[in-house]
Amino acid sequence: MKKIKTEYDLKVEFYDLDPMEVVWHGNYLKYIEAARCDMLEKIGYTYEDMKNDNTAYPVATMDLKYIKPAFFGQKLRVESTLESVEPALIISYIIKDSKTGEKIFKARSMQIRIDSTTKESLYTAHEKFLKKIEEY
Amino acid sequence: MKKIKTEYDLKVEFYDLDPMEVVWHGNYLKYIEAARCDMLEKIGYTYEDMKNDNTAYPVATMDLKYIKPAFFGQKLRVESTLESVEPALIISYIIKDSKTGEKIFKARSMQIRIDSTTKESLYTAHEKFLKKIEEY
Amino acid sequence: MKKIKTEYDLKVEFYDLDPMEVVWHGNYLKYIEAARCDMLEKIGYTYEDMKNDNTAYPVATMDLKYIKPAFFGQKLRVESTLESVEPALIISYIIKDSKTGEKIFKARSMQIRIDSTTKESLYTAHEKFLKKIEEY
Amino acid sequence: MKKIKTEYDLKVEFYDLDPMEVVWHGNYLKYIEAARCDMLEKIGYTYEDMKNDNTAYPVATMDLKYIKPAFFGQKLRVESTLESVEPALIISYIIKDSKTGEKIFKARSMQIRIDSTTKESLYTAHEKFLKKIEEY
Repeated sequence: MKKIKTEYDLKVEFYDLDPMEVVWHGNYLKYIEAARCDMLEKIGYTYEDMKNDNTAYPVATMDLKYIKPAFFGQKLRVESTLESVEPALIISYIIKDSKTGEKIFKARSMQIRIDSTTKESLYTAHEKFLKKIEEY
Repeated sequence: MKKIKTEYDLKVEFYDLDPMEVVWHGNYLKYIEAARCDMLEKIGYTYEDMKNDNTAYPVATMDLKYIKPAFFGQKLRVESTLESVEPALIISYIIKDSKTGEKIFKARSMQIRIDSTTKESLYTAHEKFLKKIEEY
Repeated sequence: MKKIKTEYDLKVEFYDLDPMEVVWHGNYLKYIEAARCDMLEKIGYTYEDMKNDNTAYPVATMDLKYIKPAFFGQKLRVESTLESVEPALIISYIIKDSKTGEKIFKARSMQIRIDSTTKESLYTAHEKFLKKIEEY
Repeated sequence: MKKIKTEYDLKVEFYDLDPMEVVWHGNYLKYIEAARCDMLEKIGYTYEDMKNDNTAYPVATMDLKYIKPAFFGQKLRVESTLESVEPALIISYIIKDSKTGEKIFKARSMQIRIDSTTKESLYTAHEKFLKKIEEY
Protein backbone atom coordinates (compact mmCIF):
# COMPACT_ATOMS: atom_id res chain seq x y z
CA MET A 1 0.00 0.00 0.00
CA LYS A 2 1.27 3.44 -0.83
CA LYS A 3 1.85 5.73 2.10
CA ILE A 4 -0.38 8.72 1.61
CA LYS A 5 0.91 11.91 3.19
CA THR A 6 -1.12 15.05 3.73
CA GLU A 7 -0.57 18.39 5.43
CA TYR A 8 -2.95 20.39 7.56
CA ASP A 9 -2.28 23.93 8.79
CA LEU A 10 -3.66 25.49 11.91
CA LYS A 11 -3.08 28.37 14.28
CA VAL A 12 -3.02 28.10 18.06
CA GLU A 13 -6.09 29.81 19.51
CA PHE A 14 -6.42 31.47 22.91
CA TYR A 15 -8.92 28.86 24.10
CA ASP A 16 -6.32 26.13 23.47
CA LEU A 17 -4.00 27.51 26.14
CA ASP A 18 -3.52 26.42 29.72
CA PRO A 19 -2.22 28.41 32.72
CA MET A 20 1.38 27.84 31.53
CA GLU A 21 0.37 29.86 28.44
CA VAL A 22 1.07 26.88 26.20
CA VAL A 23 -1.33 24.57 24.38
CA TRP A 24 -3.00 22.28 26.94
CA HIS A 25 -1.70 18.78 26.21
CA GLY A 26 -5.15 17.31 25.52
CA ASN A 27 -5.85 19.76 22.71
CA TYR A 28 -3.32 18.05 20.44
CA LEU A 29 -5.95 15.32 20.00
CA LYS A 30 -8.13 18.00 18.39
CA TYR A 31 -5.32 19.07 16.09
CA ILE A 32 -4.63 15.55 14.88
CA GLU A 33 -8.32 14.73 14.54
CA ALA A 34 -8.74 17.78 12.31
CA ALA A 35 -5.71 16.64 10.29
CA ARG A 36 -7.11 13.10 10.04
CA CYS A 37 -10.52 14.34 8.82
CA ASP A 38 -8.69 16.52 6.32
CA MET A 39 -6.72 13.50 5.05
CA LEU A 40 -9.90 11.44 4.70
CA GLU A 41 -11.56 14.31 2.83
CA LYS A 42 -8.60 14.54 0.46
CA ILE A 43 -8.72 10.77 -0.10
CA GLY A 44 -12.47 11.08 -0.63
CA TYR A 45 -13.79 8.78 2.06
CA THR A 46 -15.20 10.91 4.84
CA TYR A 47 -17.15 10.44 8.06
CA GLU A 48 -20.33 10.80 5.95
CA ASP A 49 -19.21 8.00 3.63
CA MET A 50 -18.48 5.78 6.62
CA LYS A 51 -21.96 6.41 7.97
CA ASN A 52 -23.49 5.61 4.60
CA ASP A 53 -21.52 2.35 4.59
CA ASN A 54 -22.80 1.58 8.11
CA THR A 55 -19.30 1.59 9.47
CA ALA A 56 -17.23 3.60 11.93
CA TYR A 57 -13.62 3.86 13.04
CA PRO A 58 -13.40 4.32 16.81
CA VAL A 59 -9.92 5.03 18.13
CA ALA A 60 -8.36 1.92 19.69
CA THR A 61 -4.93 3.18 20.73
CA MET A 62 -3.06 6.44 20.62
CA ASP A 63 0.59 7.17 21.43
CA LEU A 64 1.53 10.77 22.08
CA LYS A 65 4.92 12.39 22.36
CA TYR A 66 5.23 16.01 23.39
CA ILE A 67 8.48 17.55 22.15
CA LYS A 68 8.13 21.31 22.59
CA PRO A 69 5.34 23.57 23.84
CA ALA A 70 3.27 25.60 21.37
CA PHE A 71 2.21 29.19 22.00
CA PHE A 72 -0.66 31.59 21.31
CA GLY A 73 -0.91 32.51 17.65
CA GLN A 74 1.77 30.04 16.58
CA LYS A 75 1.23 28.56 13.14
CA LEU A 76 1.52 24.80 13.11
CA ARG A 77 1.59 22.20 10.36
CA VAL A 78 0.35 18.67 10.97
CA GLU A 79 2.00 16.15 8.64
CA SER A 80 -0.09 12.98 8.57
CA THR A 81 0.96 9.66 7.08
CA LEU A 82 -1.46 6.84 6.35
CA GLU A 83 0.54 3.83 7.56
CA SER A 84 -2.02 1.09 6.96
CA VAL A 85 -5.75 0.53 6.48
CA GLU A 86 -5.87 -3.23 7.10
CA PRO A 87 -6.17 -4.92 9.49
CA ALA A 88 -6.51 -1.52 11.21
CA LEU A 89 -6.36 2.15 10.20
CA ILE A 90 -3.03 3.47 11.40
CA ILE A 91 -2.03 7.08 10.92
CA SER A 92 1.07 8.81 12.23
CA TYR A 93 1.37 12.55 12.79
CA ILE A 94 4.15 15.07 13.23
CA ILE A 95 3.30 18.61 14.23
CA LYS A 96 5.87 21.21 13.32
CA ASP A 97 6.17 24.96 13.56
CA SER A 98 5.08 26.10 10.08
CA LYS A 99 7.92 28.59 9.72
CA THR A 100 10.92 27.01 11.40
CA GLY A 101 9.98 23.35 10.89
CA GLU A 102 10.81 22.70 14.52
CA LYS A 103 9.09 19.55 15.83
CA ILE A 104 6.44 20.15 18.47
CA PHE A 105 4.55 16.86 18.80
CA LYS A 106 4.33 13.35 17.41
CA ALA A 107 1.55 10.79 17.58
CA ARG A 108 0.27 7.55 16.14
CA SER A 109 -3.36 6.47 16.16
CA MET A 110 -4.85 3.06 15.52
CA GLN A 111 -8.54 2.83 14.70
CA ILE A 112 -10.41 -0.42 14.29
CA ARG A 113 -13.32 -0.52 11.90
CA ILE A 114 -16.64 -1.67 13.31
CA ASP A 115 -20.01 -2.54 11.87
CA SER A 116 -22.18 0.29 13.21
CA THR A 117 -25.15 -2.00 13.78
CA THR A 118 -23.56 -5.04 15.40
CA LYS A 119 -20.57 -3.12 16.89
CA GLU A 120 -18.47 -6.06 15.67
CA SER A 121 -14.82 -5.40 14.78
CA LEU A 122 -13.93 -5.70 11.11
CA TYR A 123 -10.34 -6.26 10.04
CA THR A 124 -10.77 -5.31 6.43
CA ALA A 125 -11.49 -1.89 4.99
CA HIS A 126 -14.58 -1.15 2.93
CA GLU A 127 -13.81 -1.63 -0.79
CA LYS A 128 -14.83 1.98 -1.53
CA PHE A 129 -12.21 3.20 0.92
CA LEU A 130 -9.54 0.94 -0.63
CA LYS A 131 -10.52 2.13 -4.12
CA LYS A 132 -10.27 5.78 -3.10
CA ILE A 133 -6.82 5.17 -1.62
CA GLU A 134 -5.74 3.43 -4.83
CA GLU A 135 -6.98 6.36 -6.91
CA TYR A 136 -5.38 9.03 -4.73
CA MET B 1 -46.23 26.42 37.67
CA LYS B 2 -44.09 25.85 40.70
CA LYS B 3 -40.51 27.03 40.44
CA ILE B 4 -38.32 23.98 40.89
CA LYS B 5 -34.90 24.75 42.34
CA THR B 6 -31.99 22.32 42.37
CA GLU B 7 -28.35 22.50 43.37
CA TYR B 8 -25.35 21.00 41.64
CA ASP B 9 -21.84 20.95 43.10
CA LEU B 10 -18.61 20.92 41.15
CA LYS B 11 -14.94 21.62 41.52
CA VAL B 12 -12.85 23.67 39.11
CA GLU B 13 -10.45 21.41 37.22
CA PHE B 14 -7.05 22.31 35.79
CA TYR B 15 -8.26 21.81 32.22
CA ASP B 16 -10.94 24.48 32.81
CA LEU B 17 -8.35 27.22 33.30
CA ASP B 18 -7.03 29.77 30.86
CA PRO B 19 -3.72 31.67 30.82
CA MET B 20 -5.06 34.08 33.46
CA GLU B 21 -5.30 31.05 35.78
CA VAL B 22 -9.06 31.46 36.03
CA VAL B 23 -11.87 29.42 34.50
CA TRP B 24 -12.04 30.18 30.77
CA HIS B 25 -15.33 32.03 30.22
CA GLY B 26 -16.73 29.46 27.79
CA ASN B 27 -16.48 26.65 30.32
CA TYR B 28 -19.34 28.06 32.37
CA LEU B 29 -21.62 26.70 29.66
CA LYS B 30 -20.39 23.23 30.68
CA TYR B 31 -21.08 23.93 34.32
CA ILE B 32 -24.64 25.05 33.69
CA GLU B 33 -25.29 22.23 31.24
CA ALA B 34 -24.23 19.72 33.90
CA ALA B 35 -26.52 21.48 36.38
CA ARG B 36 -29.38 21.46 33.89
CA CYS B 37 -28.98 17.72 33.18
CA ASP B 38 -28.87 17.15 36.94
CA MET B 39 -32.13 19.10 37.36
CA LEU B 40 -33.81 17.10 34.60
CA GLU B 41 -32.59 13.86 36.17
CA LYS B 42 -34.00 14.92 39.55
CA ILE B 43 -37.32 15.81 37.89
CA GLY B 44 -37.24 12.47 36.10
CA TYR B 45 -37.33 13.57 32.48
CA THR B 46 -33.88 13.15 30.99
CA TYR B 47 -32.19 13.39 27.61
CA GLU B 48 -33.02 9.70 27.13
CA ASP B 49 -36.71 10.34 27.80
CA MET B 50 -36.69 13.20 25.31
CA LYS B 51 -35.17 10.92 22.68
CA ASN B 52 -37.80 8.28 23.37
CA ASP B 53 -40.47 10.94 22.93
CA ASN B 54 -38.85 11.98 19.62
CA THR B 55 -38.22 15.44 20.93
CA ALA B 56 -35.23 17.64 21.74
CA TYR B 57 -34.54 20.97 23.39
CA PRO B 58 -31.89 22.91 21.47
CA VAL B 59 -30.69 26.10 23.14
CA ALA B 60 -32.28 29.19 21.57
CA THR B 61 -30.85 32.00 23.67
CA MET B 62 -28.43 32.31 26.52
CA ASP B 63 -27.55 35.36 28.63
CA LEU B 64 -24.35 35.20 30.64
CA LYS B 65 -23.09 37.50 33.36
CA TYR B 66 -19.59 37.04 34.75
CA ILE B 67 -19.28 38.44 38.27
CA LYS B 68 -16.03 37.11 39.71
CA PRO B 69 -13.34 34.78 38.41
CA ALA B 70 -13.13 31.18 39.66
CA PHE B 71 -9.85 29.45 40.44
CA PHE B 72 -8.22 26.00 40.34
CA GLY B 73 -9.71 23.63 42.90
CA GLN B 74 -12.46 26.06 43.92
CA LYS B 75 -15.71 24.37 44.92
CA LEU B 76 -18.70 25.87 43.22
CA ARG B 77 -22.43 25.40 43.61
CA VAL B 78 -24.80 25.95 40.70
CA GLU B 79 -28.29 26.91 41.84
CA SER B 80 -30.74 26.30 39.00
CA THR B 81 -34.32 27.51 38.85
CA LEU B 82 -36.87 26.18 36.39
CA GLU B 83 -38.62 29.40 35.35
CA SER B 84 -41.00 27.98 32.75
CA VAL B 85 -41.57 25.00 30.49
CA GLU B 86 -44.15 26.51 28.14
CA PRO B 87 -44.01 28.06 25.65
CA ALA B 88 -40.26 27.49 26.12
CA LEU B 89 -37.98 25.85 28.66
CA ILE B 90 -36.38 28.66 30.66
CA ILE B 91 -33.86 27.97 33.39
CA SER B 92 -31.87 30.51 35.37
CA TYR B 93 -28.60 29.77 37.11
CA ILE B 94 -26.48 31.31 39.81
CA ILE B 95 -23.01 29.95 40.48
CA LYS B 96 -21.63 30.64 43.93
CA ASP B 97 -18.54 29.73 45.87
CA SER B 98 -19.70 26.70 47.90
CA LYS B 99 -18.10 27.91 51.09
CA THR B 100 -18.48 31.68 51.11
CA GLY B 101 -21.65 31.92 49.00
CA GLU B 102 -19.99 34.65 46.96
CA LYS B 103 -21.60 35.04 43.53
CA ILE B 104 -19.38 34.07 40.59
CA PHE B 105 -21.68 33.85 37.58
CA LYS B 106 -25.31 34.18 36.51
CA ALA B 107 -27.08 32.93 33.41
CA ARG B 108 -30.44 32.29 31.85
CA SER B 109 -31.09 29.79 29.07
CA MET B 110 -34.10 29.45 26.82
CA GLN B 111 -34.59 26.19 24.96
CA ILE B 112 -37.32 25.62 22.40
CA ARG B 113 -38.70 22.14 22.03
CA ILE B 114 -38.57 20.61 18.57
CA ASP B 115 -39.97 17.51 16.95
CA SER B 116 -36.81 15.49 16.26
CA THR B 117 -38.10 14.23 12.91
CA THR B 118 -39.59 17.36 11.38
CA LYS B 119 -37.34 19.83 13.29
CA GLU B 120 -40.52 21.87 13.79
CA SER B 121 -40.73 24.08 16.90
CA LEU B 122 -43.25 23.01 19.52
CA TYR B 123 -44.53 25.48 22.07
CA THR B 124 -45.98 22.99 24.50
CA ALA B 125 -44.09 20.52 26.66
CA HIS B 126 -44.63 16.76 26.40
CA GLU B 127 -47.30 15.64 28.89
CA LYS B 128 -44.83 13.23 30.55
CA PHE B 129 -42.50 16.14 31.29
CA LEU B 130 -45.38 18.23 32.71
CA LYS B 131 -46.52 15.28 34.84
CA LYS B 132 -43.02 14.76 36.23
CA ILE B 133 -42.78 18.44 37.13
CA GLU B 134 -46.18 18.25 38.85
CA GLU B 135 -45.06 15.21 40.85
CA TYR B 136 -41.71 16.67 41.85
CA MET C 1 -15.78 56.06 16.93
CA LYS C 2 -15.77 54.21 13.64
CA LYS C 3 -17.30 50.78 13.67
CA ILE C 4 -14.58 48.39 12.62
CA LYS C 5 -15.84 45.24 10.92
CA THR C 6 -13.78 42.13 10.32
CA GLU C 7 -14.44 38.66 8.97
CA TYR C 8 -13.12 35.35 10.20
CA ASP C 9 -13.60 32.03 8.38
CA LEU C 10 -13.71 28.62 9.98
CA LYS C 11 -14.83 25.09 9.30
CA VAL C 12 -16.85 22.95 11.69
CA GLU C 13 -14.66 20.14 13.04
CA PHE C 14 -15.78 16.70 14.19
CA TYR C 15 -14.79 17.44 17.80
CA ASP C 16 -17.19 20.42 17.81
CA LEU C 17 -20.23 18.17 17.37
CA ASP C 18 -22.66 16.84 19.93
CA PRO C 19 -24.87 13.75 19.83
CA MET C 20 -27.40 15.62 17.65
CA GLU C 21 -24.60 15.83 15.05
CA VAL C 22 -24.64 19.61 15.23
CA VAL C 23 -22.15 22.02 16.81
CA TRP C 24 -22.49 21.83 20.60
CA HIS C 25 -23.91 25.18 21.70
CA GLY C 26 -20.95 26.04 23.94
CA ASN C 27 -18.48 25.81 21.08
CA TYR C 28 -19.78 29.01 19.53
CA LEU C 29 -17.89 30.83 22.29
CA LYS C 30 -14.72 29.39 20.76
CA TYR C 31 -15.70 30.56 17.31
CA ILE C 32 -16.37 34.12 18.42
CA GLU C 33 -13.26 34.21 20.60
CA ALA C 34 -11.16 33.23 17.58
CA ALA C 35 -12.92 35.95 15.56
CA ARG C 36 -12.33 38.50 18.32
CA CYS C 37 -8.60 37.65 18.54
CA ASP C 38 -8.44 37.91 14.76
CA MET C 39 -10.06 41.37 14.90
CA LEU C 40 -7.61 42.53 17.58
CA GLU C 41 -4.70 41.20 15.52
CA LYS C 42 -5.95 43.09 12.47
CA ILE C 43 -6.30 46.26 14.54
CA GLY C 44 -2.81 45.63 15.91
CA TYR C 45 -3.53 45.43 19.62
CA THR C 46 -3.33 41.79 20.68
CA TYR C 47 -3.40 39.75 23.87
CA GLU C 48 0.39 40.17 23.99
CA ASP C 49 0.09 43.96 23.79
CA MET C 50 -2.48 43.92 26.59
CA LYS C 51 -0.11 41.92 28.77
CA ASN C 52 2.71 44.34 28.03
CA ASP C 53 0.40 47.17 29.06
CA ASN C 54 -0.45 45.30 32.28
CA THR C 55 -4.07 45.15 31.31
CA ALA C 56 -6.66 42.51 30.49
CA TYR C 57 -10.21 42.33 29.16
CA PRO C 58 -12.20 39.67 31.00
CA VAL C 59 -15.66 38.99 29.60
CA ALA C 60 -18.37 40.69 31.68
CA THR C 61 -21.52 39.77 29.78
CA MET C 62 -22.38 37.74 26.74
CA ASP C 63 -25.71 37.40 24.92
CA LEU C 64 -26.10 34.45 22.60
CA LYS C 65 -28.79 33.73 20.04
CA TYR C 66 -28.86 30.40 18.24
CA ILE C 67 -30.64 30.65 14.90
CA LYS C 68 -29.84 27.46 12.99
CA PRO C 69 -27.70 24.43 13.74
CA ALA C 70 -24.30 24.02 12.05
CA PHE C 71 -23.01 20.71 10.72
CA PHE C 72 -19.79 18.75 10.25
CA GLY C 73 -17.54 20.28 7.63
CA GLN C 74 -19.74 23.35 7.18
CA LYS C 75 -17.84 26.52 6.32
CA LEU C 76 -18.82 29.44 8.50
CA ARG C 77 -17.99 33.11 8.45
CA VAL C 78 -17.96 35.17 11.63
CA GLU C 79 -18.65 38.86 10.99
CA SER C 80 -17.50 40.89 13.97
CA THR C 81 -18.28 44.53 14.63
CA LEU C 82 -16.45 46.65 17.17
CA GLU C 83 -19.33 48.56 18.75
CA SER C 84 -17.41 50.48 21.41
CA VAL C 85 -14.16 50.50 23.36
CA GLU C 86 -15.11 52.92 26.11
CA PRO C 87 -16.39 52.65 28.75
CA ALA C 88 -16.30 48.94 27.83
CA LEU C 89 -15.20 46.82 24.87
CA ILE C 90 -18.34 45.73 23.07
CA ILE C 91 -18.21 43.49 20.04
CA SER C 92 -21.15 41.99 18.17
CA TYR C 93 -20.94 38.88 16.02
CA ILE C 94 -23.00 37.24 13.31
CA ILE C 95 -22.09 33.77 12.14
CA LYS C 96 -23.29 32.87 8.66
CA ASP C 97 -22.92 29.95 6.32
CA SER C 98 -20.02 31.04 4.09
CA LYS C 99 -21.71 29.95 0.90
CA THR C 100 -25.40 30.68 1.36
CA GLY C 101 -25.07 33.59 3.80
CA GLU C 102 -27.75 31.98 5.97
CA LYS C 103 -27.58 33.21 9.57
CA ILE C 104 -26.56 30.59 12.11
CA PHE C 105 -25.79 32.49 15.31
CA LYS C 106 -25.60 35.98 16.77
CA ALA C 107 -23.86 37.25 19.89
CA ARG C 108 -22.71 40.35 21.70
CA SER C 109 -19.88 40.42 24.22
CA MET C 110 -18.99 43.11 26.72
CA GLN C 111 -15.51 43.07 28.23
CA ILE C 112 -14.38 45.43 30.96
CA ARG C 113 -10.75 46.41 31.07
CA ILE C 114 -8.90 45.73 34.30
CA ASP C 115 -5.51 46.63 35.68
CA SER C 116 -3.79 43.23 35.81
CA THR C 117 -2.04 44.02 39.08
CA THR C 118 -4.81 45.61 41.15
CA LYS C 119 -7.69 43.84 39.30
CA GLU C 120 -9.44 47.23 39.36
CA SER C 121 -11.91 48.01 36.57
CA LEU C 122 -10.86 50.70 34.13
CA TYR C 123 -13.43 52.50 32.03
CA THR C 124 -11.07 53.96 29.50
CA ALA C 125 -9.06 52.12 26.88
CA HIS C 126 -5.26 52.23 26.75
CA GLU C 127 -4.13 55.06 24.45
CA LYS C 128 -2.19 52.58 22.28
CA PHE C 129 -5.39 50.65 21.64
CA LEU C 130 -7.29 53.86 20.77
CA LYS C 131 -4.48 54.94 18.46
CA LYS C 132 -4.49 51.60 16.65
CA ILE C 133 -8.24 51.82 16.16
CA GLU C 134 -7.88 55.34 14.80
CA GLU C 135 -5.19 54.18 12.37
CA TYR C 136 -7.12 51.14 11.19
CA MET D 1 9.22 3.51 46.23
CA LYS D 2 5.77 2.47 47.31
CA LYS D 3 3.14 2.43 44.63
CA ILE D 4 0.47 4.87 45.71
CA LYS D 5 -2.99 4.07 44.36
CA THR D 6 -5.92 6.45 44.41
CA GLU D 7 -9.46 6.41 43.06
CA TYR D 8 -11.40 9.22 41.44
CA ASP D 9 -15.10 9.03 40.56
CA LEU D 10 -16.82 10.91 37.79
CA LYS D 11 -19.97 10.88 35.72
CA VAL D 12 -20.10 11.24 31.95
CA GLU D 13 -21.60 14.60 31.04
CA PHE D 14 -23.58 15.47 27.91
CA TYR D 15 -20.84 17.85 26.70
CA ASP D 16 -18.36 14.93 26.73
CA LEU D 17 -20.25 13.08 24.00
CA ASP D 18 -19.61 12.91 20.29
CA PRO D 19 -22.01 12.17 17.41
CA MET D 20 -21.72 8.43 18.16
CA GLU D 21 -23.30 9.23 21.55
CA VAL D 22 -20.19 8.02 23.36
CA VAL D 23 -17.46 9.96 25.12
CA TRP D 24 -15.28 11.68 22.52
CA HIS D 25 -11.87 9.98 22.69
CA GLY D 26 -9.98 13.16 23.57
CA ASN D 27 -12.04 13.75 26.70
CA TYR D 28 -10.38 10.84 28.47
CA LEU D 29 -7.37 13.12 28.86
CA LYS D 30 -9.59 15.34 30.99
CA TYR D 31 -10.73 12.41 33.10
CA ILE D 32 -7.19 11.25 33.82
CA GLU D 33 -5.94 14.78 34.45
CA ALA D 34 -8.69 15.24 37.05
CA ALA D 35 -7.67 11.89 38.60
CA ARG D 36 -4.00 12.92 38.58
CA CYS D 37 -4.73 16.26 40.28
CA ASP D 38 -6.84 14.37 42.82
CA MET D 39 -3.92 11.98 43.51
CA LEU D 40 -1.51 14.89 43.96
CA GLU D 41 -3.98 16.60 46.29
CA LYS D 42 -4.27 13.41 48.36
CA ILE D 43 -0.48 13.12 48.50
CA GLY D 44 -0.31 16.79 49.47
CA TYR D 45 1.82 18.18 46.66
CA THR D 46 -0.43 20.11 44.30
CA TYR D 47 -0.08 22.37 41.27
CA GLU D 48 0.13 25.30 43.72
CA ASP D 49 3.02 23.66 45.58
CA MET D 50 4.82 23.06 42.29
CA LYS D 51 4.43 26.73 41.40
CA ASN D 52 5.75 27.77 44.79
CA ASP D 53 8.75 25.51 44.21
CA ASN D 54 9.27 27.11 40.78
CA THR D 55 8.77 23.80 39.08
CA ALA D 56 6.29 22.22 36.66
CA TYR D 57 5.53 18.80 35.21
CA PRO D 58 4.66 19.07 31.53
CA VAL D 59 3.44 15.84 29.92
CA ALA D 60 6.19 14.17 27.87
CA THR D 61 4.46 11.02 26.65
CA MET D 62 1.04 9.48 26.92
CA ASP D 63 -0.16 6.04 25.84
CA LEU D 64 -3.88 5.54 25.51
CA LYS D 65 -5.88 2.36 25.06
CA TYR D 66 -9.61 2.52 24.41
CA ILE D 67 -11.36 -0.67 25.49
CA LYS D 68 -15.08 0.07 25.53
CA PRO D 69 -17.14 3.19 24.85
CA ALA D 70 -18.66 5.16 27.74
CA PHE D 71 -22.16 6.63 27.63
CA PHE D 72 -24.15 9.62 28.90
CA GLY D 73 -24.66 9.54 32.66
CA GLN D 74 -22.39 6.52 33.13
CA LYS D 75 -20.51 6.51 36.42
CA LEU D 76 -16.83 5.86 35.98
CA ARG D 77 -13.99 5.23 38.40
CA VAL D 78 -10.41 6.16 37.52
CA GLU D 79 -7.86 4.05 39.37
CA SER D 80 -4.50 5.79 39.28
CA THR D 81 -1.16 4.26 40.26
CA LEU D 82 1.95 6.30 40.91
CA GLU D 83 4.57 4.17 39.16
CA SER D 84 7.62 6.39 39.69
CA VAL D 85 8.66 9.95 40.49
CA GLU D 86 12.31 9.77 39.46
CA PRO D 87 13.76 10.18 36.93
CA ALA D 88 10.25 11.04 35.67
CA LEU D 89 6.72 11.14 37.06
CA ILE D 90 4.93 8.10 35.69
CA ILE D 91 1.30 7.41 36.48
CA SER D 92 -0.87 4.65 35.07
CA TYR D 93 -4.65 4.77 34.91
CA ILE D 94 -7.49 2.33 34.48
CA ILE D 95 -11.01 3.64 33.99
CA LYS D 96 -13.78 1.21 34.91
CA ASP D 97 -17.53 1.31 35.08
CA SER D 98 -18.18 2.10 38.76
CA LYS D 99 -20.90 -0.49 39.11
CA THR D 100 -19.84 -3.43 36.95
CA GLY D 101 -16.08 -2.92 37.14
CA GLU D 102 -15.89 -3.36 33.39
CA LYS D 103 -12.73 -1.82 31.90
CA ILE D 104 -13.31 1.16 29.64
CA PHE D 105 -9.90 2.75 29.14
CA LYS D 106 -6.25 2.47 30.15
CA ALA D 107 -3.44 4.98 29.96
CA ARG D 108 0.04 5.78 31.14
CA SER D 109 1.50 9.26 31.36
CA MET D 110 5.11 10.34 31.76
CA GLN D 111 5.82 13.87 32.93
CA ILE D 112 9.28 15.36 33.14
CA ARG D 113 9.95 17.95 35.80
CA ILE D 114 11.29 21.29 34.61
CA ASP D 115 12.66 24.37 36.29
CA SER D 116 9.96 26.95 35.54
CA THR D 117 12.48 29.74 35.01
CA THR D 118 15.14 28.05 32.88
CA LYS D 119 12.75 25.44 31.34
CA GLU D 120 15.59 22.94 31.96
CA SER D 121 14.63 19.29 32.56
CA LEU D 122 15.21 17.97 36.06
CA TYR D 123 15.49 14.25 36.67
CA THR D 124 14.97 14.34 40.42
CA ALA D 125 11.81 15.22 42.30
CA HIS D 126 11.63 18.14 44.75
CA GLU D 127 12.41 16.91 48.28
CA LYS D 128 9.03 18.17 49.52
CA PHE D 129 7.27 15.96 46.98
CA LEU D 130 9.38 12.93 47.98
CA LYS D 131 8.68 13.61 51.65
CA LYS D 132 4.94 13.83 51.05
CA ILE D 133 5.00 10.53 49.14
CA GLU D 134 6.96 8.92 52.00
CA GLU D 135 4.42 10.20 54.53
CA TYR D 136 1.38 9.13 52.54
